[in-house]
Amino acid sequence: MEAIFATDHTRELVPRIREFIHTHLVPLETGEYLTGNFSKVAAILDQKRELVRQAGLWGLQHSIDEGGLGLTLCEFGQVSEVLATSPFGHYTFNCQAPDIGNMELMHKYASDDIKRQYLEPLKEGHIRSCFSMTEPEFAGSNPTQMGTLAVRDGDEWVINGHKWFTSSADGAAFAVVMAVTNPDAAPHKRASMIVVPTDNPGFELVRNISIMGDPSDHWGSHAEVRYTNCRVPYSNLIGGEGMGFMLAQERLGPGRIHHCMRWIGIAERSFELMCRRAATREVEPGMMLGEKQFIQGFIAESRAEIDASRLMVLRTAHNIDEQGAAAVRNEISAIKFFVANMVLRVVDRAIQTFGAMGITDDVLLAWYYRHERGARIYDGADEVHKTALARSILKNYGLDTRKNKAADVVRS
Amino acid sequence: MEAIFATDHTRELVPRIREFIHTHLVPLETGEYLTGNFSKVAAILDQKRELVRQAGLWGLQHSIDEGGLGLTLCEFGQVSEVLATSPFGHYTFNCQAPDIGNMELMHKYASDDIKRQYLEPLKEGHIRSCFSMTEPEFAGSNPTQMGTLAVRDGDEWVINGHKWFTSSADGAAFAVVMAVTNPDAAPHKRASMIVVPTDNPGFELVRNISIMGDPSDHWGSHAEVRYTNCRVPYSNLIGGEGMGFMLAQERLGPGRIHHCMRWIGIAERSFELMCRRAATREVEPGMMLGEKQFIQGFIAESRAEIDASRLMVLRTAHNIDEQGAAAVRNEISAIKFFVANMVLRVVDRAIQTFGAMGITDDVLLAWYYRHERGARIYDGADEVHKTALARSILKNYGLDTRKNKAADVVRS
Amino acid sequence: MEAIFATDHTRELVPRIREFIHTHLVPLETGEYLTGNFSKVAAILDQKRELVRQAGLWGLQHSIDEGGLGLTLCEFGQVSEVLATSPFGHYTFNCQAPDIGNMELMHKYASDDIKRQYLEPLKEGHIRSCFSMTEPEFAGSNPTQMGTLAVRDGDEWVINGHKWFTSSADGAAFAVVMAVTNPDAAPHKRASMIVVPTDNPGFELVRNISIMGDPSDHWGSHAEVRYTNCRVPYSNLIGGEGMGFMLAQERLGPGRIHHCMRWIGIAERSFELMCRRAATREVEPGMMLGEKQFIQGFIAESRAEIDASRLMVLRTAHNIDEQGAAAVRNEISAIKFFVANMVLRVVDRAIQTFGAMGITDDVLLAWYYRHERGARIYDGADEVHKTALARSILKNYGLDTRKNKAADVVRS
Amino acid sequence: MEAIFATDHTRELVPRIREFIHTHLVPLETGEYLTGNFSKVAAILDQKRELVRQAGLWGLQHSIDEGGLGLTLCEFGQVSEVLATSPFGHYTFNCQAPDIGNMELMHKYASDDIKRQYLEPLKEGHIRSCFSMTEPEFAGSNPTQMGTLAVRDGDEWVINGHKWFTSSADGAAFAVVMAVTNPDAAPHKRASMIVVPTDNPGFELVRNISIMGDPSDHWGSHAEVRYTNCRVPYSNLIGGEGMGFMLAQERLGPGRIHHCMRWIGIAERSFELMCRRAATREVEPGMMLGEKQFIQGFIAESRAEIDASRLMVLRTAHNIDEQGAAAVRNEISAIKFFVANMVLRVVDRAIQTFGAMGITDDVLLAWYYRHERGARIYDGADEVHKTALARSILKNYGLDTRKNKAADVVRS
Repeated sequence: MEAIFATDHTRELVPRIREFIHTHLVPLETGEYLTGNFSKVAAILDQKRELVRQAGLWGLQHSIDEGGLGLTLCEFGQVSEVLATSPFGHYTFNCQAPDIGNMELMHKYASDDIKRQYLEPLKEGHIRSCFSMTEPEFAGSNPTQMGTLAVRDGDEWVINGHKWFTSSADGAAFAVVMAVTNPDAAPHKRASMIVVPTDNPGFELVRNISIMGDPSDHWGSHAEVRYTNCRVPYSNLIGGEGMGFMLAQERLGPGRIHHCMRWIGIAERSFELMCRRAATREVEPGMMLGEKQFIQGFIAESRAEIDASRLMVLRTAHNIDEQGAAAVRNEISAIKFFVANMVLRVVDRAIQTFGAMGITDDVLLAWYYRHERGARIYDGADEVHKTALARSILKNYGLDTRKNKAADVVRS
Repeated sequence: MEAIFATDHTRELVPRIREFIHTHLVPLETGEYLTGNFSKVAAILDQKRELVRQAGLWGLQHSIDEGGLGLTLCEFGQVSEVLATSPFGHYTFNCQAPDIGNMELMHKYASDDIKRQYLEPLKEGHIRSCFSMTEPEFAGSNPTQMGTLAVRDGDEWVINGHKWFTSSADGAAFAVVMAVTNPDAAPHKRASMIVVPTDNPGFELVRNISIMGDPSDHWGSHAEVRYTNCRVPYSNLIGGEGMGFMLAQERLGPGRIHHCMRWIGIAERSFELMCRRAATREVEPGMMLGEKQFIQGFIAESRAEIDASRLMVLRTAHNIDEQGAAAVRNEISAIKFFVANMVLRVVDRAIQTFGAMGITDDVLLAWYYRHERGARIYDGADEVHKTALARSILKNYGLDTRKNKAADVVRS
Repeated sequence: MEAIFATDHTRELVPRIREFIHTHLVPLETGEYLTGNFSKVAAILDQKRELVRQAGLWGLQHSIDEGGLGLTLCEFGQVSEVLATSPFGHYTFNCQAPDIGNMELMHKYASDDIKRQYLEPLKEGHIRSCFSMTEPEFAGSNPTQMGTLAVRDGDEWVINGHKWFTSSADGAAFAVVMAVTNPDAAPHKRASMIVVPTDNPGFELVRNISIMGDPSDHWGSHAEVRYTNCRVPYSNLIGGEGMGFMLAQERLGPGRIHHCMRWIGIAERSFELMCRRAATREVEPGMMLGEKQFIQGFIAESRAEIDASRLMVLRTAHNIDEQGAAAVRNEISAIKFFVANMVLRVVDRAIQTFGAMGITDDVLLAWYYRHERGARIYDGADEVHKTALARSILKNYGLDTRKNKAADVVRS
Repeated sequence: MEAIFATDHTRELVPRIREFIHTHLVPLETGEYLTGNFSKVAAILDQKRELVRQAGLWGLQHSIDEGGLGLTLCEFGQVSEVLATSPFGHYTFNCQAPDIGNMELMHKYASDDIKRQYLEPLKEGHIRSCFSMTEPEFAGSNPTQMGTLAVRDGDEWVINGHKWFTSSADGAAFAVVMAVTNPDAAPHKRASMIVVPTDNPGFELVRNISIMGDPSDHWGSHAEVRYTNCRVPYSNLIGGEGMGFMLAQERLGPGRIHHCMRWIGIAERSFELMCRRAATREVEPGMMLGEKQFIQGFIAESRAEIDASRLMVLRTAHNIDEQGAAAVRNEISAIKFFVANMVLRVVDRAIQTFGAMGITDDVLLAWYYRHERGARIYDGADEVHKTALARSILKNYGLDTRKNKAADVVRS
């Protein structure tokens, strides 16, 4: 914990969650659950969810008017870091993406009907959801290029399109779909978000895309999805027509804080594994691995980089709390690439410290190595955020590099 | 190909092999074969092996007195690079580790009996083998620390020990085991190599260790093995008693050339995928990914680093051909860490260029990312080779940093 | 400024100082003053000091009981950053090392007599001082190895020794010398600090060591000094006998905050120069340098790294204010190498952005490039701090790597 | 030396030159000559030139028809590396830029009259020359943007323009000036090269630009020059009208080999200093600096990188010898940025190894650090070469990124 950002909430919650993770989730980190399908572990995690409820730790992300604790983003970020020290933490506490983002969005913008039908069971953990935005045919760096169309036909939307990386679609009860509804509007006013139940005959889960050797299933899946003449009620619209990008932006600001804090949790966990290994592995008679300067360098650089990352993210979260995400778009871009690169370096150093054991599924590190490589890609690749940040800075120096107004939408 | 190292052999072989790979092996790079067990693809590859034989390309690594082409190490390195542009290349051409190393070793040092029984079918591809050296209890950086013991009992060895990363053990007909036979000798004269058939009741394949999400099987496996009162004929000894480390060193010099050239092949293949993606992926209307300077930077740096690596390795192979491995131990250490780091950077840049698709098993890159992380660890971790190289250099300046004579054995 | 660390003091002072620097010091950054001897500019800076006094900005670092503002370390750090945006800032405000450290030390530990004779005129800017610790014969990484001896002879010390990097000795009125006074004590209780007037016949300024092409003089000098039977009153001792290392540590904690904040100021200034250049330099007709992604990458990465550094340092300063330096030794080690490396990267990128002009003395960058390379060396080299940090961390994991208790003294 | 590139010439010359450097030039590396003006050392070097002549080592770069040895570019590269192990090597052997480039150019393209008047005394070392191409108003990355005009007026050229980085102009007898002579031609056929004696009243040496603290003079200078109605005979034209860029390209191919080999020589020298320091500097009682893994890492990585660089450059030189520079433009771009970055890393590591002494002018490293930072900028900045290389590669994949045909001229 970083003293300057600690609050009564975090001082109370963080140790309790840490204890819970340690007792209930760390023992699940075995080769069996770190490879293959998520469904193997999901049943067990559902039992753990009961323990979370009993401990009064369910729904940590909810606002006070939702019956939650009303944590600030900066506080929840600190909670999220601890949850991330287990790969099963967020799921067990029902704070996992994309559900957490869908919950927040629907709470603010969905009709009461939609809330009752979808949001309530989602908050209870009775169903899961997915978010269907990215398309294989178009570069993610420019989300205003989108092929999925939703055409109004009386009281219904008729949706046609092709998506992938619709994460967690397998087994989800519904998807929040981003589709172009107003093709003639300005680029970032073209799209809307619409709720689509996955049992709709127009919704086809083509496949769970195999990622880094792991097709997985259930919450762990990343689906390719096809929408074919998919008809849903007009009222499944979230917010208003053309608000899709605005809502995506609203989602992405906190979403990036969540991701970044998750990466920091992963980095801390990897750091701990690395230090423990260094302190206990004998490399020569009487000489521990941690006495080697190369390993000391790994440890020292990781410590500095993790701390720097946490300070950057919590300060950004704090500023979002104070000023709103729009005011700190530059900070959000900066943490996205800074922290994503940090976590991959730390995981890599930890693997190197473990030697051959580090690439086995006997330790958690290989799991992180495979599953977090995407950190530098999704939600805006390194290159997109660097460009966006530099362009924004250069504007203060009188240079407008923006040739395509749509190009920045991907940011916060 | 690098003109200064091209010979008649490489000028003839390289294009033919390249064509073979392109026609017969690249089409197998589908999600189906890039995930899960190797046995799924092995059956198909066995058919491809027939085509290799028909093309007269079987046994490329053999010396003239074995009926082969007698390629120099520098020539075979160039062949090996091309084979590595498919993850199935070496296996299909029966040049795969650890069999290639076992073949060379047995050809030089095994008895005629052992040759007839094991080497001949191995050369024909009728059986497979494994090499059993690394132990979980001892750091790989110091191979003279070894717990496996082989005690002579009349005409037999009785072997007891615990190994892991006995690669390809699953389905292998025999293992070449490194065991301490002379515990009282000088550290690097303690061990010997012994052939152990895997159907021996004292040979237990405990498990195929899951590596980066992939337990695999068959040639793709990395086994944990236990030897319990494992009795084999005394004549299964390769070379003489106490020659284990000497033979390991003899194996490692060329072995590192093989690995390095394989990594260069992987890097070239990844480079090609990256360039093709950059040239054909539209990121904005009318703007290809390859027009972005960040991507151009990836391409330019990769090109320079791959070429530098190839020159380093072929020059080292050439010098081994001329002077023997012992004379160029420093060069061998240098290429081991230099090239291992290069290939991981190039694969990483290619993934970044592909964006989200890069982490899927729809392209080969994720496979390389997972399976080659070990490059910086096995056969001497980066840190071991850097230390060994620096120590050797500093000796020329009058500083002897060697406190432990055994410590350098791991090198060439 | 970083909002979470802003106080009434910094909100008032920072803009005023920024304005002062911009108006009075930036115009002095010409080739004339950026090359050659410091004395060329010192005369002008002495006039500027009058303006500082008139503006009521003299003595910003002093505690309330010294008649100052009583800024916390965290507040003064923020002031120090702004001062550092000119290479002449700290000198003009009389906050420059090593005088600032000597002032603080003498204020706390010197006798009233010493204070009257040396501290008062130092605070007024009427004299300058130097700090004489490093010795050419011994590695700076282990300060307990020290050859300079001070032997008591009645009411006097007789000092003999050889020092270098006695910065600013040229023209200084006195030196604070670190000398072994108790050779038989425990290593870090051997040395003491003693005030030596430079007009003492036993004090010989051997030469101003030429650094990066610049022997300089006056405050800009780095002297080699020889003490030969140098006799000073016993009461010139600061603190007690054997307190030398303790005082050095006390000095180094805040001293590293000062250095780090100075580097951040330098980085910010370089960043600003880089951005201005990028926004205004045409590279092709109609295409500004800042439209190139490589340059955007420089800008984005620098922005993130500078912000991360500032947060790290101010958080450390804040924690020193709250808990004392001893409690945050690890944080101090981390910022020392983290920020020193950052500033050199940012300066380097700015030079690259300027192209050929960047290596000329027409812009400030070449000055920073030359004069700040030492950042990664002095006050504990990167390697020393990384090792110290890792060792301290590993102790929490049960590994004691400390074979030489003295080795850590160099830290805070 | 790299065995695969050694020839009878290099086997004979390299040890002799190495010996000469060691005996006659290394002793001049004192603070006195490593700071301040080049003229201080030039007088001594002129005496050393006599020794070069006596040793029969004068004019190593000349072709056989010029009475030289007719070294290939690959052979001369190896000579150049050795010369570069002293900062005074090239000058002493009269192989220094820009004279070497001017000699080659004039030998091939100048009239007999020009040769007699300028080339002959230049080859004898009786005069010096400069090359006047870069302009402060235009980005060096696009040399077809050029403001200097030469207008024909009867039998004369009238030249007007503003140049900088006209290196070595101070004291030179003549300049080779690049000026636009055919403004309406295609971009890279606009300019010509013209000989201008520096005593021409239209030639004004505005100043020696201070570089990294060092305005220098004589051969060590980098001048700003103004041409004002500067009239020279029409026959001072080198080659034909409009051939300027073609000649510049012809010059740049070998020129980059020269630079790269020079950097490799610098890296080798720095490496040697680093190793010697590591082997002899005690950091703790009984513990040498070279026993620290961080330092071992510096040494090992430097060794690998220097060797990789040398192989890259000599292979490129070899290929230029075989196929001409035009055929290996990609290789030339690759070595330019690869080697420039390498040398700066090696120098930096050597400085770090020396600690405080490394930034003093008591050792050569600070000189290299200051004077070679430009390596990543001149003759095409890193960014320019990376872009050019990537564009050329991507053309093979069907992508033409070239919007501005002139943009690549800067390469070779």
